[in-house]
Amino acid sequence: MSDFPKFVEFREEGPREGFQVEKKIYPIEQRVELIDMLSTTGLKHIQVGSFVSPEKVPQMADTPELFARIRRVPGVRYTGLWLNDKGFRKALAADRVDIEPALLFYASDTFSRQNNNASAAEMREKQRVSLRLYRDEGHTVEAAYVMAAFGCNFEGVIPQERVLDDFRFVIDLCGEEGVAVPTLFIADTMGWANPEAVKRMIGAVRGLAPSARIGMHIHDTRGLGIANVHAALSMGVDVFDTSVAGLGGCPFAGHGHVRAAGNVCTEDAVFLCHELGIQTGIDLDRLVEAALYAEKIIGAPLMGRVMHSGGLDRFRR
Amino acid sequence: MSDFPKFVEFREEGPREGFQVEKKIYPIEQRVELIDMLSTTGLKHIQVGSFVSPEKVPQMADTPELFARIRRVPGVRYTGLWLNDKGFRKALAADRVDIEPALLFYASDTFSRQNNNASAAEMREKQRVSLRLYRDEGHTVEAAYVMAAFGCNFEGVIPQERVLDDFRFVIDLCGEEGVAVPTLFIADTMGWANPEAVKRMIGAVRGLAPSARIGMHIHDTRGLGIANVHAALSMGVDVFDTSVAGLGGCPFAGHGHVRAAGNVCTEDAVFLCHELGIQTGIDLDRLVEAALYAEKIIGAPLMGRVMHSGGLDRFRR
Repeated sequence: MSDFPKFVEFREEGPREGFQVEKKIYPIEQRVELIDMLSTTGLKHIQVGSFVSPEKVPQMADTPELFARIRRVPGVRYTGLWLNDKGFRKALAADRVDIEPALLFYASDTFSRQNNNASAAEMREKQRVSLRLYRDEGHTVEAAYVMAAFGCNFEGVIPQERVLDDFRFVIDLCGEEGVAVPTLFIADTMGWANPEAVKRMIGAVRGLAPSARIGMHIHDTRGLGIANVHAALSMGVDVFDTSVAGLGGCPFAGHGHVRAAGNVCTEDAVFLCHELGIQTGIDLDRLVEAALYAEKIIGAPLMGRVMHSGGLDRFRR
Repeated sequence: MSDFPKFVEFREEGPREGFQVEKKIYPIEQRVELIDMLSTTGLKHIQVGSFVSPEKVPQMADTPELFARIRRVPGVRYTGLWLNDKGFRKALAADRVDIEPALLFYASDTFSRQNNNASAAEMREKQRVSLRLYRDEGHTVEAAYVMAAFGCNFEGVIPQERVLDDFRFVIDLCGEEGVAVPTLFIADTMGWANPEAVKRMIGAVRGLAPSARIGMHIHDTRGLGIANVHAALSMGVDVFDTSVAGLGGCPFAGHGHVRAAGNVCTEDAVFLCHELGIQTGIDLDRLVEAALYAEKIIGAPLMGRVMHSGGLDRFRR
């Protein structure tokens, strides 16, 4: 009936996602401490910050310093985000960044133009150039994202075929350039997915690329995040982008301003996996400690549930 | 593959659940206004307050006045909660309460003793007495709840057989007393359920009582609430207790105190249904307005997601 994985990998995006969206710049000591706490939870993949324009995103200007100051735990990958070749060069120049290039595609042309001043088709061609650059620098493309895969606030419902067409492009491109097909990430960037749509999409992508690994990037904008994670798990998806404490989705930051939720919350998703008997390698209690510390940094209640209620192991006999 | 219902009924508990758990007593004018707003959303079932001890629960002391002041919409049932015969008498004496008796069972003996100073077995026998009282007064028992059906903070995991045994008792009792079997509500009172456990439980209860209607009372304590709703929907469950804005689960009331979440949020669950093509008879935009008004009453951000992000219809073409 279902195809649950035995082990699920979480890619923690809280340290970037959570602080990049804030207007305020939080002290670097606290962000270092949060990453160091996350490093002891069993998480194997932590996105530390992003290499973007310090003028446009001053919150991320000290990303190289963050990389220099964190206490690395062997086996954990510390990654950064970049959006163009200039950012990639910065990441290469920074102190021991685990370079994990990703290709970025837009299922919505309007969204692509808004974000990049380029059509979705032009973005595709840019990914071809980037892939060659990464390959020539000796780096493996780890992931290919199709963003706004379920719907777009500018274009409405996105036909599944457009998403499949992007992934088809990825597969063809990898074949042409002689590199392995990366993990195919279906990204619900604007919170349009529901569990049945998630299952249909995963089934379609698997039909297209039966041997590819599929990942999900899920936003909890309209409260369906954890139901969408469950739907993806039931289809065998074993890698998710998530954010500790639901960082990035805090509706309380600023001055009473309520903001739409961001990434689905790491510890809630980990709790779901454990309750389903799926291993994650993550110590939920330690993760909750990190989530509570994140809440302390932000200085306002965050959206996670398990961080406030605790897990169930302490009650079990 | 799945058995989604065509139409789902929501029983709104926010006006009681939300204000009963607060230390503060909110102005009755505001609570009347919230109920009046909810009355125009298409909700057909609104729990207005409870008939309990005004000394123990002063927040609910003005429940009779609430009933007297609300603006009734034809077709909407305005109900109250009571926990013993004295409360039932109060409900009968109050102004136009829609009397919907429920039988209450505890799957956890320790929880029953904590709540009622009576064992689970003693509570069963009390329900027999109550059922006769309701019948003799000419009222139909609408629901039978088994509480802590998935687990209990005092007793740990609850074996499914104990839940089935309670429902078996209900069915036998109704047979003996010559009344119809009410809706069988599976209540995850302490937030122990997960979607797979929900599906197994519903399957087992349906096996026991193939023709009975099954309802779910789901708490979002650990973030799995909406995933549990989806699981129940996929098993054909078509009636849920929910709470507008997630009222009762506000982690921000009081002074920075973070509290475990309560009932699953009505508008998030309604949104899920609509996205799945399931009708609810509810106007989501109006419900969001009521949720935002609830947030205004509480004076702090509430846990609902759709109330802060809005639905998707405005983006669709």
